[in-house]
Amino acid sequence: MEAPAETHVGHGYVNHKDDLLKRLRRAEGQVRGIQRMVEEDTYCIDILTQVSAATKALERVALALLDDHLSHCVAAAAEEGGAVSQEKLTEASNAIARLVG
Amino acid sequence: MEAPAETHVGHGYVNHKDDLLKRLRRAEGQVRGIQRMVEEDTYCIDILTQVSAATKALERVALALLDDHLSHCVAAAAEEGGAVSQEKLTEASNAIARLVG
Amino acid sequence: MEAPAETHVGHGYVNHKDDLLKRLRRAEGQVRGIQRMVEEDTYCIDILTQVSAATKALERVALALLDDHLSHCVAAAAEEGGAVSQEKLTEASNAIARLVG
Amino acid sequence: MEAPAETHVGHGYVNHKDDLLKRLRRAEGQVRGIQRMVEEDTYCIDILTQVSAATKALERVALALLDDHLSHCVAAAAEEGGAVSQEKLTEASNAIARLVG
Repeated sequence: MEAPAETHVGHGYVNHKDDLLKRLRRAEGQVRGIQRMVEEDTYCIDILTQVSAATKALERVALALLDDHLSHCVAAAAEEGGAVSQEKLTEASNAIARLVG
Repeated sequence: MEAPAETHVGHGYVNHKDDLLKRLRRAEGQVRGIQRMVEEDTYCIDILTQVSAATKALERVALALLDDHLSHCVAAAAEEGGAVSQEKLTEASNAIARLVG
Repeated sequence: MEAPAETHVGHGYVNHKDDLLKRLRRAEGQVRGIQRMVEEDTYCIDILTQVSAATKALERVALALLDDHLSHCVAAAAEEGGAVSQEKLTEASNAIARLVG
Repeated sequence: MEAPAETHVGHGYVNHKDDLLKRLRRAEGQVRGIQRMVEEDTYCIDILTQVSAATKALERVALALLDDHLSHCVAAAAEEGGAVSQEKLTEASNAIARLVG
């Protein structure tokens, strides 16, 4: 599924890599914080608030990735047209359906 | 926001209009059924089950519309490239964010 | 699944029936409006905006129903305790999972 | 917001602590895996699949916490009745709304 390294430059998120990694590290920190809350018997509702925050943070990462993907990979495929283009669009639609569902 | 009538033929969902309308009529029937349940004092949980079903039905309509939109409008814009293409992609990303959020 | 008519008075939403029906009628109107948009070949993204609005409206109905249900039916069951109480809680948890998923 | 340590035993999730921590550690591992994928320029759609999986894992943690909370804290409050009971229910409803929205 991986394109050869030379074409990686085309990956949509390549210019936002630092931003994505920063968000993901923060989400990781949130999940670790939730573990600590469970270990310390924090009140259920306060834990739930943190779990919702971490979930939303991951959803925003997903939307950013999808945004980059549509702008680069899908747009590039559409310019070429044909079967590859259709395949990319189906792939993107399936990813969106997983996010929504 | 509306393209002139002559280009409507390009609207992504134009070939699925009957399918979309059938789904939407079914969703409308579900919402009317829920009203009847409330009027007849149906048990809360049974009403909730129907509300979830109607919500999922509308989400599937949204995914079908988005699918057609990406395949047609966005792909067509990408072939032209430039500012219009970027605008279409931003528009699509915002619509996806509203669906997920 | 339906309790006998005499106990209906205990249904959580009974005091909010008018409010629920008003919201549901508005949601029904939104779904009908979406059908009209499809029939009139409205631009995909504008339709999607309306579908998201109708979905959110139904989600708010679900949350209002669940709220009433927890305040009345589940609270009443908890006061009685025992197997019925547990059953009500499981039922409510399953309804919440359907809403979230 | 925190009850004194002696009453912690009543926290809904106390009997599922190991299970919750196991799930949370797995979610943390998933988020770290996603960072690695970004660093290694993995294909956008494959990353999105993992982000969706981590999001769903956190949603399941939230549902498990809420389930325990309704069964224990809310049920206990309902048995006592009165203002505390109402406050607990409002708190739970708000947590559910954050999960759904």
